[in-house]
Amino acid sequence: MKLIRFGEEKNEKPGILNEQDERLDLSGFFQDWDSNFFASGGLEKLREIIASGKNFPVVSTNERWGPCVARPYKIICIGLNYSDHAEESGMKIPGEPIIFMKASNTLVGPYDEVYIPKNSSKTDWEVELGVIVGKEASYLNSPEEAKDCIAGYCISHDVSERAFQLEKGGQWTKGKSCKSFNPLGPFMSTADETLIVNELEMELKVNDVVMQHGNTNKMIFDVDYIVWYLSQFMVLEPGDVISTGTPPGVGMGKKPPLYLKAGDVVELTIEGLGKQKQTFVQA
Amino acid sequence: MKLIRFGEEKNEKPGILNEQDERLDLSGFFQDWDSNFFASGGLEKLREIIASGKNFPVVSTNERWGPCVARPYKIICIGLNYSDHAEESGMKIPGEPIIFMKASNTLVGPYDEVYIPKNSSKTDWEVELGVIVGKEASYLNSPEEAKDCIAGYCISHDVSERAFQLEKGGQWTKGKSCKSFNPLGPFMSTADETLIVNELEMELKVNDVVMQHGNTNKMIFDVDYIVWYLSQFMVLEPGDVISTGTPPGVGMGKKPPLYLKAGDVVELTIEGLGKQKQTFVQA
Repeated sequence: MKLIRFGEEKNEKPGILNEQDERLDLSGFFQDWDSNFFASGGLEKLREIIASGKNFPVVSTNERWGPCVARPYKIICIGLNYSDHAEESGMKIPGEPIIFMKASNTLVGPYDEVYIPKNSSKTDWEVELGVIVGKEASYLNSPEEAKDCIAGYCISHDVSERAFQLEKGGQWTKGKSCKSFNPLGPFMSTADETLIVNELEMELKVNDVVMQHGNTNKMIFDVDYIVWYLSQFMVLEPGDVISTGTPPGVGMGKKPPLYLKAGDVVELTIEGLGKQKQTFVQA
Repeated sequence: MKLIRFGEEKNEKPGILNEQDERLDLSGFFQDWDSNFFASGGLEKLREIIASGKNFPVVSTNERWGPCVARPYKIICIGLNYSDHAEESGMKIPGEPIIFMKASNTLVGPYDEVYIPKNSSKTDWEVELGVIVGKEASYLNSPEEAKDCIAGYCISHDVSERAFQLEKGGQWTKGKSCKSFNPLGPFMSTADETLIVNELEMELKVNDVVMQHGNTNKMIFDVDYIVWYLSQFMVLEPGDVISTGTPPGVGMGKKPPLYLKAGDVVELTIEGLGKQKQTFVQA
């Protein structure tokens, strides 16, 4: 199943994408694709309702695409998780996953405008595989056990301001939490779909020029390992978003470095997970 | 006004502490001291209701004390904000505030048990002045403007696991987000109370021995500056919790270092903001 959300910001409704790529309105059956939905066996109920052969209203193509899941309790990001990206950043390959957090009010839709922050000189892109947590997870025994805690996958754009992140003292959060810095979607593909998660092509273009190209098979720590690892340090909750790191080709790694300016158009694709497209504007 | 919450975990009700230190039940008038309450002028309404001279039911002394505000969207922490603590940590005095985030499901009541995480060897204490955000704040023009965005103050215990924070690669979040790692309360003192925020004595004892002693007048960046600064990098939301850094005397800074073990009792006080007391137990 492919979960989508549509409608005005902060008032999105839940829906699905069918095999003809039509958006169908499920708001007659569910409140939202939120923590409570995942926690209460919502995906099972959704599967049953779809299997029952019911007809759902088609969503107008004019309706905005929202982030594919509701605002989560936490957005957790993994740093330097692709060996070739660590190299281009001039950083060592980490021995354990690097964890940081992004404010959860950064979430926007896959086609929304993204704001270049005031006083920003180094706004940068990062295409990432996003993981949506399906159930509470604490002290999982093994990466194998993590599989059962994953609701699905989507594209997550971990927009970053490098001067804020790296030149202002301390922790990365500072360059990761600006308004609109996390386009998510267009859809969440449920974990039961035929997606080979550890072998997905990823690409990011700026103004039609390919900047990032990679494959999830280059992850240093794979998805199951990450979920297991995180569960040793915090309680993961249903609906939490995990961004699993970015492949090479970020602006900071270019020679000379290249950053986004107002009017730039960024397009992101991950195999089987659709496409995002954002225009950057000045805050 | 002094806001408190009482009752079972995840089912707390809102109340106030009166001048006789009795807890009064306000759940007949308000849902909770949450983001929506602060955003919708709740403090004004509360002030009017109290002024009207109504009688409120007294909360039984048997009732648990919950965290003084509801689970926030964000818990934002400031690192190394006391010059003498930076020194004991062997770190440079920061030129700009260091920001990191703590998972918001770490919040517990001021007298709840705190879990020493599995595989922890360096669980440490940090008494901090907590600030509760009263309204949305983005790109504030000056620290002066920040005053209007603060709902109130409380004690925040920023419990930390130093091996997770500092010895496992990368960002501090890893040692800050474990279950129960943020006792908050006992009450939030509203910003209109006669509290000299920049001159508050703070103390933390472990098993009756004074470990931390400090005063908010040693902050490198004061509260208004911090709120203004944060608003340049993220959108602060009503109900967000900001922990403003810890004075000297953490376990990591002792010679030799000293960490918490199961059975230890930690007591925290900040002038005008009451007292916390937690027993540490093994997760």
